[in-house]
Amino acid sequence: MNDECTPVLNTGLRGIDVASSKICDVRGKEGKLIYRGYRIEDLAENATFEEVCFLLLYERLPGKQELADFDVRLKQKRRLPENLVPLLKSLPKKMNPMDVLQIAAPMLIQTDGNAGKENMEHVLYSAENLIAGLSTIIAAWDRIRKFQAPVMPDNTLGHAANFLYMLTNEPPKAEVAQFFDAGLVMHAEHSFNASTFTARQVASTKAHIYAAISAAIGSLSGPLHGGANVRVMQMLMEIKSQENIAPYIDNILDSGGLIMGLGHAVYQTDDPRALILAPMSRRMGEIAGDTRWYDLSRELEIKAKEAFKKRKDRDIFCNVDFYSASLFYAMGISMDLFSPIFALSRVSGWCAHVIEEQFATAAPKPSLYRPGAAYVGEYCGPDECRFANIEERE
Amino acid sequence: MNDECTPVLNTGLRGIDVASSKICDVRGKEGKLIYRGYRIEDLAENATFEEVCFLLLYERLPGKQELADFDVRLKQKRRLPENLVPLLKSLPKKMNPMDVLQIAAPMLIQTDGNAGKENMEHVLYSAENLIAGLSTIIAAWDRIRKFQAPVMPDNTLGHAANFLYMLTNEPPKAEVAQFFDAGLVMHAEHSFNASTFTARQVASTKAHIYAAISAAIGSLSGPLHGGANVRVMQMLMEIKSQENIAPYIDNILDSGGLIMGLGHAVYQTDDPRALILAPMSRRMGEIAGDTRWYDLSRELEIKAKEAFKKRKDRDIFCNVDFYSASLFYAMGISMDLFSPIFALSRVSGWCAHVIEEQFATAAPKPSLYRPGAAYVGEYCGPDECRFANIEERE
Repeated sequence: MNDECTPVLNTGLRGIDVASSKICDVRGKEGKLIYRGYRIEDLAENATFEEVCFLLLYERLPGKQELADFDVRLKQKRRLPENLVPLLKSLPKKMNPMDVLQIAAPMLIQTDGNAGKENMEHVLYSAENLIAGLSTIIAAWDRIRKFQAPVMPDNTLGHAANFLYMLTNEPPKAEVAQFFDAGLVMHAEHSFNASTFTARQVASTKAHIYAAISAAIGSLSGPLHGGANVRVMQMLMEIKSQENIAPYIDNILDSGGLIMGLGHAVYQTDDPRALILAPMSRRMGEIAGDTRWYDLSRELEIKAKEAFKKRKDRDIFCNVDFYSASLFYAMGISMDLFSPIFALSRVSGWCAHVIEEQFATAAPKPSLYRPGAAYVGEYCGPDECRFANIEERE
Repeated sequence: MNDECTPVLNTGLRGIDVASSKICDVRGKEGKLIYRGYRIEDLAENATFEEVCFLLLYERLPGKQELADFDVRLKQKRRLPENLVPLLKSLPKKMNPMDVLQIAAPMLIQTDGNAGKENMEHVLYSAENLIAGLSTIIAAWDRIRKFQAPVMPDNTLGHAANFLYMLTNEPPKAEVAQFFDAGLVMHAEHSFNASTFTARQVASTKAHIYAAISAAIGSLSGPLHGGANVRVMQMLMEIKSQENIAPYIDNILDSGGLIMGLGHAVYQTDDPRALILAPMSRRMGEIAGDTRWYDLSRELEIKAKEAFKKRKDRDIFCNVDFYSASLFYAMGISMDLFSPIFALSRVSGWCAHVIEEQFATAAPKPSLYRPGAAYVGEYCGPDECRFANIEERE
């Protein structure tokens, strides 16, 4: 690169395209989210999470037999390695589930004799192993920490329903499972977010997919990345009731703060996922017999939009976290499982990116991420610091 | 950024400065490696690994009392959480030690009640916990996989000597411990290599240091990053004896291949670490009663330099891996521990970078790494693909 085009330092690479990808297109201006050519609206309404996993991993929607085979393979991989439940039982019950996931996810390599082989077929096997396994780990941990026995997977149930079953030991209502499934579909992929970039960066060293996915889990655990819908829910609980909405908004706008779940780095209009999640959250509230959090969210959305228009002369839109908070909450899911559920879904996108990073054939092919850094540390003299032995140090 | 200055895609960010850092300066043309202002030659000769850890973490060399206190803290953190050895015992004996480390490292969070708190003092505590703990994990695993009982740390010994003691159950000779210590010093830091970038990237999400270091371990496990000195050793074993050197070099040069351990992405002259490691490797061979691998390395270096000059009209230089291979091998260390030992040392640099990423106060401050990607996937029509239900798919 010539000097004039050296990028600005310390920008977090914002707005800089670091790769080409065929997986996902986020068209922020139009409010469109596209997985492998398909709009998220079509996928959320018509495709199961398993179909979306297949789409992301195999680059096209499956045929009937392909999906049936894929489904069998995922189900075979739901069982955990024998030493994993004892490990989970040995961990402190108060441990953050994302930390548990980071410890446990790479243990899935034990049931994968092919890990580390540089062959796309093997890596696809591993990807399926991770997609299936993460779900069982999260559910098992949630039960173990509550001093309940883990529930074995039910192979008559699909991925979403089985996860809810393993969590509660009861088969979920069809509509609830369907909403959860759509939630997984909508969180599966979103181009180069921080955790996906981490996964690709690790994969670019030719490390195996378990290493890449474990790293991505670590990245997702950061409050600037995952956990936004937890903070939406905490905000709703803080606001508590309708009459507090207006003062809450005023207070936030006065102090220059943010309203959680509103605004997005990329979307300049409605996040298409929020538009799908809102009615689901309402209906889920009805099923649970408590629409309070949905109602509060809806009123907050309306009032915040008015306030932003009036006081800041600009539009503001809900992002994916705004209604997923009340949706998952109404399902009875612990708030500290919201990020692990994000991982349970996004692992499909991460795996697709790892595969693209390691097997993309079209030029320009991905290469090891190895950036530079500008040294701004001080030297102690005209050249380097003089090393003084410890006896001589001041 | 304006369009003319959009960086080239898929370069792996090579040559692009993505941040400012005060930690390490790699001056490739001059063959200088500088930690916080100090030359690697001075540090390798005069400073212990503990002093270098202090320098990297606390931004200056310690005074006598500071070093003594630091030493006590590290020793207190050598003990592993109670459930860690049972976990290691439950893992398949043939598991790759880097995979073991990726599972076990985040378990150290259990002995750290402050993890996740956004306070520099807490993060420094965690960094010390990781530096101390990784060493014990690696040694314990090496013994457990050989059906030997793990050896408890000996707090009369320094970091390097204690590691070798925990590995063998025998206190190492002073000279051997000193060489190993210098080896740790020389691998501690090297600016924005792939694993360090991974650690910083995860840290930029405000994830805690255990998440960042676990991710870095995953990144280091990739053959394009860690493991180069293993491949040097494998090459030496393939060459076997002096008379095979010339044909080996000819063969590599004919086929356009690489000679492992020669050449470096940044250094355009001698890697300063290789110049220090070469005599150590020779002496270590003498101590072990077998200088064969050093002799072979030395002859290979001389002949390869001649061959590159003659056939390619260019100079070629040893990098850090060239003589560290025969050095560690002569110490009797298993080859698949070379990368874990790299981690055992580099964890100090990773931690310094995590702290800089999260606490740097000078502008421009680091921000979340969230790059973009160019979507190059195909749409199926003028707009998005038409979603066909599974029954209708061809």
